[in-house]
Amino acid sequence: MAEPGRSARVVPSARVQEKRRRRRREILQAALRAFRQRGYHETTLEDIAARLNIRSTALYYYFPDKEAILHACHREALEEVEHILAEALRRYSAAPDRLGFVISEHVRVMTDSLEGTPLALDTTSLSPSHAAQVIARRDRYENAVRGVIDEGIAAGVFRAVDSKVAAFVIFGAINWIARWYRPGGSLQPAELGARFADYLTGGLTCR
Amino acid sequence: MAEPGRSARVVPSARVQEKRRRRRREILQAALRAFRQRGYHETTLEDIAARLNIRSTALYYYFPDKEAILHACHREALEEVEHILAEALRRYSAAPDRLGFVISEHVRVMTDSLEGTPLALDTTSLSPSHAAQVIARRDRYENAVRGVIDEGIAAGVFRAVDSKVAAFVIFGAINWIARWYRPGGSLQPAELGARFADYLTGGLTCR
Repeated sequence: MAEPGRSARVVPSARVQEKRRRRRREILQAALRAFRQRGYHETTLEDIAARLNIRSTALYYYFPDKEAILHACHREALEEVEHILAEALRRYSAAPDRLGFVISEHVRVMTDSLEGTPLALDTTSLSPSHAAQVIARRDRYENAVRGVIDEGIAAGVFRAVDSKVAAFVIFGAINWIARWYRPGGSLQPAELGARFADYLTGGLTCR
Repeated sequence: MAEPGRSARVVPSARVQEKRRRRRREILQAALRAFRQRGYHETTLEDIAARLNIRSTALYYYFPDKEAILHACHREALEEVEHILAEALRRYSAAPDRLGFVISEHVRVMTDSLEGTPLALDTTSLSPSHAAQVIARRDRYENAVRGVIDEGIAAGVFRAVDSKVAAFVIFGAINWIARWYRPGGSLQPAELGARFADYLTGGLTCR
């Protein structure tokens, strides 16, 4: 409930709202980098705040605790890949094009912004109810991609592989990127995405 | 240096040697299961000993500390996959057969005995010199597999893919198994290995 005297703050101006959205995003990015470099358990709110040159108390305006930050990282990553999948279905009708787009774009968000990397994190650090939500939503995404493979098999453009195993291979290869990829290396995100897509859809279209 | 009075213990009988080898293996297997279930940092020597119904002091006969156990797990996993690669080169001459054998057998040691899973562990828990040894040896193995892909490309039996990226895809997909595979599930190790090999060599042989 807003106190009458604070009502001016309840609906902030568009400029303030935009500033807060940006700051929230900066916090998530700084947290993600800290989690990747130090591990989630070793990272403190102070570490995250120090990366942004702010006091850790300022973080509480946005997130109640570290677990809430982790959960937000997971949610944003899921939004990102769900958006990619929707875009693939909207733009293309053939299964190889759809799958190729999903793979290359998913690789891009793993490497370019690192914003896909929470999908490669263990969910054991989330609260049980958050972990259950994240796992269910990730399963929905992975099953939808598996559905694209099944469509391709039904249409005769993909070999009759086990789509469950194929999805394990695809998401395993993509998630593992979080373990070895270093931004600024010789492999550019878009190129890496295209090569992953080429190899992994190639394994389905031949023979 | 053996003390003269203890010389009888210095060269134990074949039966005793065999018993020790077996016990050493049991310790590594118990440790590996504990590391997978609780994480390396959360696992204590007491946890490992409890799984074997022995006192933790008995572990010191075999390993000076937990890091030595982790290092031994890594070394055994590397021996296992090096053996698989040597076997592939000995048995087959065509690149698709060699690569298919390596993939299916590597998947098998990830799932059947779980003994390949240390290859999917982070090396940051090892001492710097052990980590360097393990990384160098793992790189040699992965480069040798990449060499098989290059051979296939040179022979015209594989498409001209980027073998470095193909190796990242293959080992990413295989290593990720450590994250989702639960022994006793619906996918049998040999079947899973065959399907991984079929999909991942299929991505190279077509067109």
